[in-house]
Amino acid sequence: MEFIDLDLKSYYRLIAPRPTIIVTTISPNGEVNAAPFSFTMPVSVSPPLIAVASVPSHHTYQNLEQTHEMVVNIPSEDILPELWTTGEKFPKGVNEIDKAGLTQMPSVEVSPPWIKESIAHMECRVEKILECGDHNLVVAEVLKVGVREDALKEGLLDVELTKPILHLGGKDFVVGDHRRKLDE
Amino acid sequence: MEFIDLDLKSYYRLIAPRPTIIVTTISPNGEVNAAPFSFTMPVSVSPPLIAVASVPSHHTYQNLEQTHEMVVNIPSEDILPELWTTGEKFPKGVNEIDKAGLTQMPSVEVSPPWIKESIAHMECRVEKILECGDHNLVVAEVLKVGVREDALKEGLLDVELTKPILHLGGKDFVVGDHRRKLDE
Repeated sequence: MEFIDLDLKSYYRLIAPRPTIIVTTISPNGEVNAAPFSFTMPVSVSPPLIAVASVPSHHTYQNLEQTHEMVVNIPSEDILPELWTTGEKFPKGVNEIDKAGLTQMPSVEVSPPWIKESIAHMECRVEKILECGDHNLVVAEVLKVGVREDALKEGLLDVELTKPILHLGGKDFVVGDHRRKLDE
Repeated sequence: MEFIDLDLKSYYRLIAPRPTIIVTTISPNGEVNAAPFSFTMPVSVSPPLIAVASVPSHHTYQNLEQTHEMVVNIPSEDILPELWTTGEKFPKGVNEIDKAGLTQMPSVEVSPPWIKESIAHMECRVEKILECGDHNLVVAEVLKVGVREDALKEGLLDVELTKPILHLGGKDFVVGDHRRKLDE
């Protein structure tokens, strides 16, 4: 098989498909914001730290910088159209959870709400922000995790049941339900 | 649907399945190392920056700290057993690419080799390292990208053809080939 050079700015198309999350934040005035991200990963297990790369001009980043709290919501295929709606451009102050027809639920450790239709949600507090090129890398500690009671099987996500959404690019996604065990 | 609390240290089971990569590095003595990672994400598009979280005691991290170069290789389902072999514990100085029966190819911009059986590879130079809990977060600039000539379709990874490997936990993986377009 031959290999060809790819333009450098497209490299991220190859780190794919990527787990997709909906991040909920709150402004200093108490306005709720929600937006989808796929530049995210676990960073540390203990303490539990998660990283999200955000464009500095976005409302989510501005809220994170000012109020230091977020909820990471894990969407399933069932709410793919709603996930997309949360990513559309709305004026500041618009609640994307309402716009998408999703249901917000009160968090315990942080002010931003969690989304009831998600598989799971993690209440987080921002610990560090690192400028990295055209994004800022936000590292947050996970303070509380809620998960749908049927979502885990033997400690792993039951992907065939929950059908997590992965992002490929644009309106193209992958449903992460094709399981393959190493020894099978 | 009821939600239950999950122990905090298991939160990363929910950011899943995650893109899996094989990172190749080289020691100051020129010994080649390879290991699989799934704590990784794109951070910036321009400049192209990629993040990998590595345990400080691992050979990969020690090489990154000392020689500041790596190649990120994207594996397909075809080489899942070989990927697993690169993750086994070998003494320092053992070349996991050889152990796994994979083929190393000379890079252009950096010293570590790329793996011929991968879908794509990215030659990278370490830019920043951030201590984050039990891992160190390594941010690297992508200097050169090589991709199999058949791997991209309309600018996106042709997942049905290339069958990228995602990690769920332990020996459980997901093949990321179940495509779903938003409007379909």
